[in-house]
Amino acid sequence: MTELRTIEIKQEILAENSREADAFRAARRAEGTYMIDIMGSPGAGKTTLLLALIEKLRSEGGAEIGVIEADLASDVDALKIKEAGVAAVELNTKNVCHVEMGMVEQAYAAFAGKKFDYVFLENIGNLVCPAEFDTGCHCRIMLLSVPEGYDKVYKYPPMFAVVDALVVTKFDYLPLNPDFDRQALREGARALNPKLEIFEVSARTGEGMAELASWLRARRQEELKQA
Amino acid sequence: MTELRTIEIKQEILAENSREADAFRAARRAEGTYMIDIMGSPGAGKTTLLLALIEKLRSEGGAEIGVIEADLASDVDALKIKEAGVAAVELNTKNVCHVEMGMVEQAYAAFAGKKFDYVFLENIGNLVCPAEFDTGCHCRIMLLSVPEGYDKVYKYPPMFAVVDALVVTKFDYLPLNPDFDRQALREGARALNPKLEIFEVSARTGEGMAELASWLRARRQEELKQA
Repeated sequence: MTELRTIEIKQEILAENSREADAFRAARRAEGTYMIDIMGSPGAGKTTLLLALIEKLRSEGGAEIGVIEADLASDVDALKIKEAGVAAVELNTKNVCHVEMGMVEQAYAAFAGKKFDYVFLENIGNLVCPAEFDTGCHCRIMLLSVPEGYDKVYKYPPMFAVVDALVVTKFDYLPLNPDFDRQALREGARALNPKLEIFEVSARTGEGMAELASWLRARRQEELKQA
Repeated sequence: MTELRTIEIKQEILAENSREADAFRAARRAEGTYMIDIMGSPGAGKTTLLLALIEKLRSEGGAEIGVIEADLASDVDALKIKEAGVAAVELNTKNVCHVEMGMVEQAYAAFAGKKFDYVFLENIGNLVCPAEFDTGCHCRIMLLSVPEGYDKVYKYPPMFAVVDALVVTKFDYLPLNPDFDRQALREGARALNPKLEIFEVSARTGEGMAELASWLRARRQEELKQA
């Protein structure tokens, strides 16, 4: 009984969330702001990737960048971003396992009218729940770190199925993980999502970061053409 | 509006789940079966730790062990456990982000009356949602791998607060993670949960595994005394 009612309410919430997300997405596009949702497990390297990516995007063309840092609790990541001189808003979900539109809108409003070329949303570290909630971004990226293991593509399919790009992080750990089967990951991920872009990067060594930044730049230009 | 209704239904579900969990826990204790819930992020090393722990528990005293392997999808982990000659039941949550009592009861019934000294439940790889749901186990253990980073204690407090033990896994990765602050993790975790046991292990090298197995054996004996 309770299960059925929960499912109904969940569908209602998801539908309302999608409508708000579409409106938010269109409004950001109209202002020239490209929004990117960064998802992945705790410790996949979201904040570290973000810092490396922001540096790349700024160094080639001087982009204006903002970051919304979602966390269950604490401001650890938001402070790291601010220390790098990037406009950051902390979104504290108070232990909620994902980010929804109401939260995104509130967090975005905290930028107080400042305009950006790119705004990144660092989602809650969770490979499961965030896949279900549209956050009004133009692009969804999931991270999977080498230490997590390639077999996660079989065990956590929903997120692989909904994102635009899979970024395999901590690629410098590969020598410690001889069992990490790059080909099986690639095939498994493309079976779930044929249009998926795949990047292999190390924020620490810089490997693959230029390709990822170029791809984002091209995606932004394509999106803005539709405005 | 929808939010309020969702919260009410969630509380109802959680209360019902806790009642079922208490009854299940008492029934297992009466049969001499000690149940352990293993939680943590995807890739924290749950299955690998489980295999190493089972070997330890079997080698010293010949314990009978069963495993319930929960996954969103796929039977990758259940097959690994079966290959090690351990009785395993696959619990496919069909993309649900946590395990609840109805699922545990169904999975346990699949053991068809076989009796065990220990039954491990490998929960969904998720550092957030499983913390909220009592699975009827006598002991809850969370894993945090060194590559995930020590700061997860600040960012994902709920699970640290509810478990009996924190097992820091992949300790052989420590040289690659000079920033991993063991002391800060210990202090942060104990601030959330003063009675928390902490183990530092590597399933690969065997470091710390004997201590963890001894602790579980002692916990089981203490629990059975209350029967």
